[in-house]
Amino acid sequence: MDVEIRERMEKLIAFFDKAPIKKTFGMDFSYNEKGEAIFVMPYNPNLNHALGGIHGGVISTLLDNAGWFTVAPHYKTWIATVDLNVQLLDHAKETRLTAVGNLVRTGKRLAMARMDVHTDEGELIATATGTFSVTSVPIDSD
Amino acid sequence: MDVEIRERMEKLIAFFDKAPIKKTFGMDFSYNEKGEAIFVMPYNPNLNHALGGIHGGVISTLLDNAGWFTVAPHYKTWIATVDLNVQLLDHAKETRLTAVGNLVRTGKRLAMARMDVHTDEGELIATATGTFSVTSVPIDSD
Amino acid sequence: MDVEIRERMEKLIAFFDKAPIKKTFGMDFSYNEKGEAIFVMPYNPNLNHALGGIHGGVISTLLDNAGWFTVAPHYKTWIATVDLNVQLLDHAKETRLTAVGNLVRTGKRLAMARMDVHTDEGELIATATGTFSVTSVPIDSD
Amino acid sequence: MDVEIRERMEKLIAFFDKAPIKKTFGMDFSYNEKGEAIFVMPYNPNLNHALGGIHGGVISTLLDNAGWFTVAPHYKTWIATVDLNVQLLDHAKETRLTAVGNLVRTGKRLAMARMDVHTDEGELIATATGTFSVTSVPIDSD
Repeated sequence: MDVEIRERMEKLIAFFDKAPIKKTFGMDFSYNEKGEAIFVMPYNPNLNHALGGIHGGVISTLLDNAGWFTVAPHYKTWIATVDLNVQLLDHAKETRLTAVGNLVRTGKRLAMARMDVHTDEGELIATATGTFSVTSVPIDSD
Repeated sequence: MDVEIRERMEKLIAFFDKAPIKKTFGMDFSYNEKGEAIFVMPYNPNLNHALGGIHGGVISTLLDNAGWFTVAPHYKTWIATVDLNVQLLDHAKETRLTAVGNLVRTGKRLAMARMDVHTDEGELIATATGTFSVTSVPIDSD
Repeated sequence: MDVEIRERMEKLIAFFDKAPIKKTFGMDFSYNEKGEAIFVMPYNPNLNHALGGIHGGVISTLLDNAGWFTVAPHYKTWIATVDLNVQLLDHAKETRLTAVGNLVRTGKRLAMARMDVHTDEGELIATATGTFSVTSVPIDSD
Repeated sequence: MDVEIRERMEKLIAFFDKAPIKKTFGMDFSYNEKGEAIFVMPYNPNLNHALGGIHGGVISTLLDNAGWFTVAPHYKTWIATVDLNVQLLDHAKETRLTAVGNLVRTGKRLAMARMDVHTDEGELIATATGTFSVTSVPIDSD
């Protein structure tokens, strides 16, 4: 992988560490060897809906993150999620969840990714596609 | 509005009160006179992403809730969100958010709704469509 | 309505007249007084699927057109459909269809619209949201 | 592959032969060895928009078909496309297009698939996800 992309990945991991939602949800973030963003969220009962399952909006958060952070290192400027299309395939109850992003396209103005969420048993419980707008605000502002 | 639907709305408000995510996010839930679910979320910095805005996944949670609870009282059985298509129109920063659902269709097997999220200044920051599967599990199980 | 926008609408109507798909599908295009693009398609059995209904892809074409042409006159440059999220609510059989676009947002880089398709009996058979990328290619090139 | 599924694939290929839109668009349909539906459409200038590219609605038709026919043989009853989320990645101009479906989930009430459209040069020009409702109408009615 490109050294510059690899460096941005390291910056983005440090960047996510400062996100308040990281702590509230309890998410861990890394990149796999293919450069795909991986978000792992241990079971957190505070994020359940009233029927005792993990809220679809929480799963959407994992999917959004997985897509955004998979796309982000490919740009020198910030990106913004524009469209997030989530398909909830099954209930997720009292389980750790892992989301992974898959890069589909890195255009000049728009990028796209596909994302999945699995349980530890390997069950695919949600998929999504994300469209990301490439802004003109530099990511390496420091 | 149908008495039976009105009764289910009251049950659903009580039901949402038990949702752990209600407390974690700090959401208030009511129905307007048209029977549309309204979710109000005061600014909660714990739900910010690392750039200081409200996370898109949190906005997706409000949208999912607004759609789900707008559709739910029209059925005697539980519904499940199947597709949630979110369009994030603008950043939301240090602001209270209000989500509202709009019923599009109540079919035998599938229901659909459109949802919006506004700031207090009336800015539309996100829209969504939701598809909900009608299950065979009775809602009035008590 | 802005004179410039009104002029672009007239140009776009002339522009659509040259589209080969207009003739293949048999679509009529106009703007209503709110500046929303209206596409009317008389029943065309050549566009049916094997079960005798109008193909969902044909309905998607009407929805795409309604959104694209509702957004386009608000820009001096060409726009391109990026995301088209279609919800097919019911079958459409041996019926004229009317699609209408509704402007949600006109941003600097991205625009968004909601679109509907009705039968003559007023039945809503499909809804959609569209995201459109604003290119840098001038629309008034002549 | 299951004999019953293989038999339904053969029936569905014969079934698609009767679809008027097959002839209007000029689509060829087959299954690959993985049981994924493949739709090939030679360049057809009648399906162009006014800028000379292949209309996004036509591409949506290929995507819808690829998903629907990938899912259909897994059921004894008819399915109906409910949600079709299309991401248009690039223009397609004067080119043959190939759409392929990929099965994500076959639930009791709902099925899901991912679909892609490529040019002959292997360029991915569109992706989609589809949600399909499983009806109670038997497919093998003859």
